Amino acid sequence: MAVSGRIDRGAVAGLADERLDWRFKSVPHGLFGLTVREALARRPGLFRDGFTGPVVALDNGAVEHNLATMAAWCAERGLALAPHGKTTMAPALFTRQLDHGAWGITAATVGQLRVYRAFGVSRVLFANELLDPGGLAWLAGELAADEEFEFTCWVDSVRGVELMTEALTAVAPLARPVRVLVEVGVAGGRTGVRDQSTARAVADAVVASPVLALAGVGGYEGPAGPDASDGSIAAVDAYLARLRETVAMLRGKFETDQVLVTAGGSAFFDRVADALTAPWPAGLPVLPVLRSGAYITHDDGFYRDISPLGAHPRVSSVPQLRSALRAWAQVVSRPEPDLALLAVGKRDVPYDIDLPEPQVLRTPTGTHGLHDARVTALNDQHAYLAVGSHTRIAVGDWVGLGLSHPCTVFDKWQLVPLTGTDGETVVDLVRTFF
Amino acid sequence: MAVSGRIDRGAVAGLADERLDWRFKSVPHGLFGLTVREALARRPGLFRDGFTGPVVALDNGAVEHNLATMAAWCAERGLALAPHGKTTMAPALFTRQLDHGAWGITAATVGQLRVYRAFGVSRVLFANELLDPGGLAWLAGELAADEEFEFTCWVDSVRGVELMTEALTAVAPLARPVRVLVEVGVAGGRTGVRDQSTARAVADAVVASPVLALAGVGGYEGPAGPDASDGSIAAVDAYLARLRETVAMLRGKFETDQVLVTAGGSAFFDRVADALTAPWPAGLPVLPVLRSGAYITHDDGFYRDISPLGAHPRVSSVPQLRSALRAWAQVVSRPEPDLALLAVGKRDVPYDIDLPEPQVLRTPTGTHGLHDARVTALNDQHAYLAVGSHTRIAVGDWVGLGLSHPCTVFDKWQLVPLTGTDGETVVDLVRTFF
Repeated sequence: MAVSGRIDRGAVAGLADERLDWRFKSVPHGLFGLTVREALARRPGLFRDGFTGPVVALDNGAVEHNLATMAAWCAERGLALAPHGKTTMAPALFTRQLDHGAWGITAATVGQLRVYRAFGVSRVLFANELLDPGGLAWLAGELAADEEFEFTCWVDSVRGVELMTEALTAVAPLARPVRVLVEVGVAGGRTGVRDQSTARAVADAVVASPVLALAGVGGYEGPAGPDASDGSIAAVDAYLARLRETVAMLRGKFETDQVLVTAGGSAFFDRVADALTAPWPAGLPVLPVLRSGAYITHDDGFYRDISPLGAHPRVSSVPQLRSALRAWAQVVSRPEPDLALLAVGKRDVPYDIDLPEPQVLRTPTGTHGLHDARVTALNDQHAYLAVGSHTRIAVGDWVGLGLSHPCTVFDKWQLVPLTGTDGETVVDLVRTFF
Repeated sequence: MAVSGRIDRGAVAGLADERLDWRFKSVPHGLFGLTVREALARRPGLFRDGFTGPVVALDNGAVEHNLATMAAWCAERGLALAPHGKTTMAPALFTRQLDHGAWGITAATVGQLRVYRAFGVSRVLFANELLDPGGLAWLAGELAADEEFEFTCWVDSVRGVELMTEALTAVAPLARPVRVLVEVGVAGGRTGVRDQSTARAVADAVVASPVLALAGVGGYEGPAGPDASDGSIAAVDAYLARLRETVAMLRGKFETDQVLVTAGGSAFFDRVADALTAPWPAGLPVLPVLRSGAYITHDDGFYRDISPLGAHPRVSSVPQLRSALRAWAQVVSRPEPDLALLAVGKRDVPYDIDLPEPQVLRTPTGTHGLHDARVTALNDQHAYLAVGSHTRIAVGDWVGLGLSHPCTVFDKWQLVPLTGTDGETVVDLVRTFF
């Protein structure tokens, strides 16, 4: 297997020196003035210490389970994992992913890449075109400053190759060529070449560029399949077959010792694993790299339904993933018998795929499952909860909500409490950088 | 007119001492290590200095125009303005609103209130129920620490009054009673009492509470009217009439010298002005307070269409508002004749009401209007741009996008460049706190 990527553990540990204050919207004022390290030493409790609502918390047991499950499964399949860091943008979680053997961390923007490099992430797969002249100039500096920094990005047009070459040639001398993958796309989908002749032309342009090195083929199967239906899976498989054909077609052009072949969001990584680990032409030193990032928290919506390790598993050798995310919000109004308003909104929880799912009710006398309730709408700071007329839910109670699509959870929080086995004691405060 | 609210100008000015680095996703690396003040002294340019894409920039001329327009209109109508700060969460913009005569700043959550107080905002209208025990304990401390801090929040249930009373009584002795308004709601809408008997019961509970003072009546007309149709406006007017009736009914119960009556999002503030400034019963010392917040940037979507000072103005005494928001994103892929992919996504621009509107194209040879193009979808980091087959748009070009719903723009940016009259030179870097 490939060697794990590295991160600057000193820089990550240094995050615990940050002082807590009003910048962190759910942190209770009783912890203000303490560093994160000092606050954690007190073993604060979500409710015991009055974290300010709304609050999104992570379940550490579920996170650890998911890290171990995905690592075991990738090892078993012979896949390197470069989880997409855009999901959490949390260096402390990247560290745990690397500790579980991740090969690298995936990025999509220069902004993300700069965060990764601030924490010394040694191997980055940039699963996107990178044509921003300022971003390329900065990248050249990073490559010059750290000879162990391994960077690979995508390209899908001859014009893109020209723009990269211009920008990188302007920064003389470049420490080493920038490694690029030809991106293969889906017709009607996102980025990526649509046909083999373009793939070949782009590859030839890369080979001709003095500042680029052709390092493999990449892509994203997501646009092929909107759901877990047989039709979607067939379209995903057809796309992955084309990815393989592109690799075979470009054989002989690759300029690196290892040929990276990468695909894989969090919905079809079982199909990606099959496609990327099937036998390659003899002598082609392929490293198959999966980029799934949402597994670390999983969810109670989109990925629960579609993940191969979700509620309808398509993989049986490892256990299902568990949702690690829960939002807590207070009931602030009960203006009608079948309506409650919660103090949580678009600023706090995702709404781009599904609305939050009411799961538990915390009252002064205890916590129990909440059935017969659903969120029907979100405003900026309010959720509308439709409740059955027999549901006992009172002003002042708190509702625990499952979330869908982790990528639009973390970007709403700069500090996320991670709770221990009691679901109450905060064992870490995870800093994000969006 | 009412006296303007205050803010700690030293604390706001201190934001210019913050150092620029990788935490701010659009800031060019050439400015890293400088303070905001030092960076601005260089008069950096959005494109000249390679701000990293995507970037959302504010047009200072439009901001100033909107500030002056709204201030003039409120003064003419005899309305106090407490703009909702949730829109921008930017102390520097709050300062400009207060400089233009704003009476206070409106908040919706404890997290927002803590930010306001960190910058010494002296008068806060909390347009929401506040029942969080930790938040109330913190509030009691703020009231004790600053005798000039004026705080008013809403309540819509007897249970809410009880919970506030319990939490505030636990903090002995409270410096002064917390001022509360009875919130009037819309049937099927959000928070707020639905009938006059509940309004009376809540008011009586407030009067009976030793720690609360009944200070007026508040509400939000938004749920009554989804659009600018005659039917919506009639429903808004009917709601506002009920708000007035509630004030009249509660006459004699108010415990403060001034009776606050407040409504007003950014869609119907003309109707709110009419309702709140019509003659009140003799001897009732009403201060009508409008809370519209989106006016400061206006937009190119929802508010352009619905605002009384928008593209279909219902107010003629002052000019229309102007959109101050524009996102810039690079074209990273042109994989099909009618499709371009932009490096901007859900992490950068709003998508909860409308998708961004392509407006201008910046090519190596100049900038011109972009017609025959529209955004059809957003992923986390990509926008899908459908283009007419005759539209010349190339990989590497930049697209300027109008935005809809400012409340979900600012929460995606910690630092927003404000450009001068050339639309290029950055004259301020506006810090937000979400």
